[in-house]
Amino acid sequence: MSLRTHNPTTQAAPLGAYSNGVSAPGSGRWLHVAGQVGVRADGSVAPDVAGQADAAWQNLLGVLADAGMGVGDLVKVTNYLLSAGDLADYGAVRSRHLGTARPASTLVIVQALARPEWRVEVEAVAWHA
Amino acid sequence: MSLRTHNPTTQAAPLGAYSNGVSAPGSGRWLHVAGQVGVRADGSVAPDVAGQADAAWQNLLGVLADAGMGVGDLVKVTNYLLSAGDLADYGAVRSRHLGTARPASTLVIVQALARPEWRVEVEAVAWHA
Amino acid sequence: MSLRTHNPTTQAAPLGAYSNGVSAPGSGRWLHVAGQVGVRADGSVAPDVAGQADAAWQNLLGVLADAGMGVGDLVKVTNYLLSAGDLADYGAVRSRHLGTARPASTLVIVQALARPEWRVEVEAVAWHA
Repeated sequence: MSLRTHNPTTQAAPLGAYSNGVSAPGSGRWLHVAGQVGVRADGSVAPDVAGQADAAWQNLLGVLADAGMGVGDLVKVTNYLLSAGDLADYGAVRSRHLGTARPASTLVIVQALARPEWRVEVEAVAWHA
Repeated sequence: MSLRTHNPTTQAAPLGAYSNGVSAPGSGRWLHVAGQVGVRADGSVAPDVAGQADAAWQNLLGVLADAGMGVGDLVKVTNYLLSAGDLADYGAVRSRHLGTARPASTLVIVQALARPEWRVEVEAVAWHA
Repeated sequence: MSLRTHNPTTQAAPLGAYSNGVSAPGSGRWLHVAGQVGVRADGSVAPDVAGQADAAWQNLLGVLADAGMGVGDLVKVTNYLLSAGDLADYGAVRSRHLGTARPASTLVIVQALARPEWRVEVEAVAWHA
């Protein structure tokens, strides 16, 4: 495991389940995961934020697995929500899937996603030796 | 060509001209392309979404070319639009430029770009052995 | 120093302190920096955009330093603001911290960040041989 986390004590600690920085050597394999949304395998969309978050993270983990990687290989995740009011529901699902993994993370609230019923999108960069 | 696409059949297929994941070995060269907008070489801005999309993608391909890369080297693109109503126009232009390339992709609708007349922005990560 | 900048003259020059593309070999170390905001080491939030921008950039540079990197190692930055009216204040602070560095850059205006008092967020990818 050659991922290193960077959380200098000269600044405020991360405000959640992430690291301020994560680095990896270039000698491994890098995976970029497209923005994953709450669409289930059967094409249905989960009705609420928690359900969409769970489906989106399951999709993300499925792409990682297809590349021979797992949650511990995540270097960076970027999270898009439609309302700051969805943060608690989203964060709970995300933390459950992350376990002890602490990728770098950015979260922004955007105006919309590609379809009006989607409320959660998460993309990722991962690395494996 | 050492790019691999990852579209596990245990989840919904990609909903457009992209892959759910793309991976590459670290041993090549990585290019990060700044957000490209619909500003033409002469400084003018195309008037509509299709025109801006075309100019932005030509700009993106120009940066790839400057790095000795092409559309087939795209690993990830991130697309920013101002309205979900622009998706069809944007997607048609993007698909034409992508050809058979299927990079990972994220698309979000944001409130604005740096200048009010800009309606399309696309950034990218690419890799070449 | 093996970073290369890509600014083809066949398109409009960068409209600020950035490059249209930056590439690096895969043989070094890659750092992904989480979205940094204007929270100071003591947990307080700077009151205005310029202050938040300065704190966010100091945080970003602190994470780079923790990974043995500096501003000259930045490959890509992604900047999130809440209003295009904040561009001038943000850009001035950013330019001061960048010095002669010219990473690739994307800037978008989003609806909100994770907390209502935050007005600036910047994330980065950096590389060092």
